[in-house]
Formats: sequence, C-alpha cells, structure tokens
Amino acid sequence: MEVSNKYVVIKHHIEEAPKESDFELKTESLNLLVDEGSDDIIVKNLYISIDPYHINRMKSFSPSQDAISYSTPLIPGQAIDGPSVGNVVASGNAKFEKGDFVVGIFTWAEYSVVKEGSIMRKLDPSQFPLTYYLGVLGFSGLSAYGGLCEFWKPQKGEKVFVSAASGSIGTLVGQYAKLLGCYVVGSSGTKEKVALLKDKLGFDNAFNYKEEINLNATLKRYFPDGIDIYFDNVGGEMLEAAIDNMNAFGRITICGVISEYDITKKRASPNMLNVIYKRITIKGFLAGDFLNIYSDFLAQTSNYLRSGKLKVIEDISFGVETIPSAFVGIFKGNNIGKKIVELKV
Amino acid sequence: MEVSNKYVVIKHHIEEAPKESDFELKTESLNLLVDEGSDDIIVKNLYISIDPYHINRMKSFSPSQDAISYSTPLIPGQAIDGPSVGNVVASGNAKFEKGDFVVGIFTWAEYSVVKEGSIMRKLDPSQFPLTYYLGVLGFSGLSAYGGLCEFWKPQKGEKVFVSAASGSIGTLVGQYAKLLGCYVVGSSGTKEKVALLKDKLGFDNAFNYKEEINLNATLKRYFPDGIDIYFDNVGGEMLEAAIDNMNAFGRITICGVISEYDITKKRASPNMLNVIYKRITIKGFLAGDFLNIYSDFLAQTSNYLRSGKLKVIEDISFGVETIPSAFVGIFKGNNIGKKIVELKV
Repeated sequence: MEVSNKYVVIKHHIEEAPKESDFELKTESLNLLVDEGSDDIIVKNLYISIDPYHINRMKSFSPSQDAISYSTPLIPGQAIDGPSVGNVVASGNAKFEKGDFVVGIFTWAEYSVVKEGSIMRKLDPSQFPLTYYLGVLGFSGLSAYGGLCEFWKPQKGEKVFVSAASGSIGTLVGQYAKLLGCYVVGSSGTKEKVALLKDKLGFDNAFNYKEEINLNATLKRYFPDGIDIYFDNVGGEMLEAAIDNMNAFGRITICGVISEYDITKKRASPNMLNVIYKRITIKGFLAGDFLNIYSDFLAQTSNYLRSGKLKVIEDISFGVETIPSAFVGIFKGNNIGKKIVELKV
Repeated sequence: MEVSNKYVVIKHHIEEAPKESDFELKTESLNLLVDEGSDDIIVKNLYISIDPYHINRMKSFSPSQDAISYSTPLIPGQAIDGPSVGNVVASGNAKFEKGDFVVGIFTWAEYSVVKEGSIMRKLDPSQFPLTYYLGVLGFSGLSAYGGLCEFWKPQKGEKVFVSAASGSIGTLVGQYAKLLGCYVVGSSGTKEKVALLKDKLGFDNAFNYKEEINLNATLKRYFPDGIDIYFDNVGGEMLEAAIDNMNAFGRITICGVISEYDITKKRASPNMLNVIYKRITIKGFLAGDFLNIYSDFLAQTSNYLRSGKLKVIEDISFGVETIPSAFVGIFKGNNIGKKIVELKV
C-alpha cells in the first residue's frame, strides 16, 4: 500500500534566528508494507515534540556535534529526527506489532520508517493522554525533575527562580519547586503567561521581563532575601542578573540559552567574582543524563498527575505543515507550555 | 616602651588596577605594653601575605561585602588587615605569651594590636619555615587542595589545566595534580615562569599566554583530548577558551579572576551552550569553606613537603614600605610563586 508522506526538512543550515522560509515541506511516496526479512517498523506519527534544542543541530557547527551521538547535525534536504508519539502500521520487529502506540525518536513527518536499534518504546494509552509522553512524562519533565530535584534537592522555604517559566520545562520546574515547599518566582514574556503562572500554576509570583528595565533590580524586588536556586532556560542578561542576586552557596542549573540561540545576540558575561564570593555552583546537563532516575521520576510525576497536583500546559498545532511555524514560534515566545504538533489521523 | 610603628593604608577606594600612589605609609606611636586588664596581644609582624583578593576590599563596593564577615570593606586611612606571621611581644591573653610565633589576621604594619576573638594560632617554628604558614600551609595551599582535590577528586590520567600557574595557588594546584597522576598544563605570562613550571615543578607542559593569539586554538594544541578539570585563576578570555575545550562532564574551579579585577577590562562571556552540551560543572569557593578539611590538608601537604615531593616557590620583598609595590606587582604578574613581604627584625 503506497501513501504520499509529507515531511519537513531544512533547506540549508541556520545560523541565526530560524524563519519559516528556512524550511521546506517535501513529499515522498512510501510503501506501508515492510519487506520480507526486514526488521523495520513503520510508524504513523500522531504527535511531534517541538523543542528549541533542534536549532543547535540546524547550525553548520554546534557543540552537540562534539558531545553526543544522538544529537548529530542535520543535513539540509533530509528528514529531521526528533521525539514523537505514533502508532505502528507495519512491523518486521517481533517486539512491536501493528496498532501499538509508541514513543521514540521518529521524524518530522506523517510516517516514519524506524530502524532496528532506534530509541523507541511502547505506551499504554489508557494511563495518560499520549501527548504527556512528549512533555511532562518525557524529556521536558525529566529535564525539570533532574535539573531541579536531582541536582539540588531543594529544601522547604528555599527561594527558586525560573526563567522562561511558561515554557515546557519552566512550567514543570516551578510546580515541582512549589510541591517541595519552595518560594517560586518565574519570568516570562507576556501578561497572559504571567497570569497563568500565578493563577493557574501556583507560582508565588511572576513577572514579564519585557516590562522590566533593570533585571538586577527586578530580581532584588522579587527576591529581597536572595535566590537559592536559579533554573536558567534563557542565558544572557537574565543569567547575569540572577548571579548578582544569588545567595551564598547558590545553585544554578543551565538548561537552555534561548536568548542566545541567535548568534548575533549578546552572550551572558556573568560576574565571576560573585561566583567566587557567593560560592555558586553552576551545572549544565542533558535530559539523557537522568535516564538512571527515569523510573523514580515517572513514579513521582505520575502520582502528582493522578492526584491533580501537577498541571499540564500544552500548546498544540495541527498538521505536518505547521511544524515550521511551530518551531519558529518557540524562539518568538509564541508557545505557552509544551509545544506539540498533532498530525491528522 | 614606645615605638614608631609604620603601617600601610589606602588613600581612597580603588576601582581599577591599583597603583602605588593609591597607598600611603603612615607612622603611629605605639606602646608595646598591654594595659592591666586588657586581653590585647601585641605582635611584631615578621611576614605579611600579599594576595590579590585584597583588591575587592579596596573597592567602594564589592561582592565580598555581601558575602562574608571577615572580608569587610577597607576604610581609607585605616590599617589594612590580612594574613601574617609574627612574634608576640606582649600579651594580656593567657593563651599566648611573649616570644610565641603566631599566624593570624594581623595588619599591613610593623606591629599589630590583636584583639580577643581575632583569628590567630601558635606556630612551631622548628617544623617548617615560617613563611610556609602564609602560602603552602596557609590559605594558598588550602585553596589549591580544596578547589582541586576536595572538589573534583582528580583521577590518574585526567587532564588538568591551571591558569596563572606560576602564582601562589597555581604552583600548588599543578603539583597536587601531578602527584595524583594527572596530565597538567599551566599558563603563565613570561618565558621564565614557563620554564619554572616545566623544569622545576614538573608540569607536563606550560605556555606563555602573552605569546598566543588564539587561546582556543592554543588549548586545543595542548589538550588534543580535551580538558577534564580547569582551575581558573584569571577569568576573561582564558575561561571562555577553556570552556570551549572542556570534555563532557568537565569540572571548573573558579578561584580568581585576576584578568577582571580591573573593572575596565572585558569580562568572560562563556558559551553556555557548551556548558549544557558538555555538562560542565562550575564552582566558586573561598578558602575558608575548607576549614573542615584543614587537618587532612595539613597532614597530606606536610608529608609531601617532608619527602620533597612538593616544591615551594616564594617571592619575597623586604620592609613594610615595599608592601604597596608588592601588592601592585601582583596585578602586573611581577611575582613568581607566593608573594610575601618580610619585615626587618
């Protein structure tokens, strides 16, 4: 059975902020049968995760190329791989059969051909909405849980600051911190997002950084007793201001640098003298580093979800052709919560 | 018995690189007897430690003012306190008596009046040269030991980079790392210093950063397999270059930022994306944080010294009037090893 399979590619490497015109929607003819003797699996994608880290793979050179095998550079014109949830339509692999719901590293496409050895596992669709496995129960959740709880073991009463707090990871970091009894403030880029953080997600406070003229003074206002833990999703001036407002023995997680993805933007120049005198610890990480605690994370987070203590914010676009605008929109702060593209069934 | 006591003060706060004309030598008349009922101790200073961190206390505002009580801002015209070794000439305190050799926080002066509750302890002058208690067995040694060994537990074969490697702390960091079986490269600012590191201190290699045009490429040359541990004494461009050359899970100690003490100089703008992808940990510290491991440090370091495995490099000036030039010289890279001013007996 032949279908026409639409998929998204980059036309060329992307060095600055991405634009929709950097992408192209291509169509291929795909046979939905698996050849005799092949162990391929064909997946019909249902939900595709849209994450800022892809921009690093779209550059002609990025640190990811040095560091980790599963984040190889993308080749213009070729299918883009990334986390997705789908349904198996054909399988030459005994571990998967037609009809299975699966999450794995598939492609920005309607259908993906998944090779033996790819990252992929079955899902039970009766437990949670399938989209959760891309966000709160996927790498976004694991990043928030690992980069906050596993790294720093936040104590009741500690003061936690989260930037890009209305994003896929930020919404979860703030809620985990609140569940641990911390005082939590988030920064975000619109009035609507600030309201969400305060009114729906239970942050103690939140502010729109675009309305602030001096971020150092802003943080002093929200943290008169200083910041104990900063979960950084943005880099740039916010990181500088946070370091100036940290308490002694403060801890900083570097999760993202969305203000610096565009290489024409200014990088953070933190005051390292403050890092010394305040004995600050700064740590970078990748979600995959926390796979050893995945089962703890999953148990804890599933409990929070079932009891309604953790709220899930998702921002869904429909159709493979919306992938470029969804991706570009992340860098403009268009999304609220986890950005996902849902494909037509 | 009255003496004339010479001491050094700052004339005004110092915001940029220090100059000798920022300092003044003052003279006071001092009675070397302790009043009845007073618990003061009068110390004749023998050796005064000259350290870059004092510059932070000379500014009108510095991070140290927030962070730690023993590093309060200095007041122009008033005596400057700092680590010294001396001899007790009079004591109203039963724990100390005339003739005791002592190390503590005294003043940049010929004589210091030490109040009850000050940081001060007796020394046994038969064990090691008295100057060692300001350097290798003092805060310099504890900083090197704590910031390298205690923080990161370096393993045999790990690749260690030290900047300002010929300074009081750098000379010790490199030697501790060699004693642990690491591959060690140091950066320094003159041919003579580079030769010292390679020929006398056993570094695997060393380079003069002033002769390099691209520090990133320089570090790639000396660390073709990347850096596992960077002990940073300088900040600025060297920190940026080191971060770009770190291995996955690399560790960085921020001990000093001598390239940034002059606020007119450019601060480091490290690539935080590398901090993420390489999962780098960056930690600041103060020597005092390691007082809990002081006895381990002392035992280990004393053994190394007695067996000749650790070499001590000291750079000594003579007379209280040389304190300003000694201090200013540190920021010009004039010293080799621990800078100390010896006072005439």
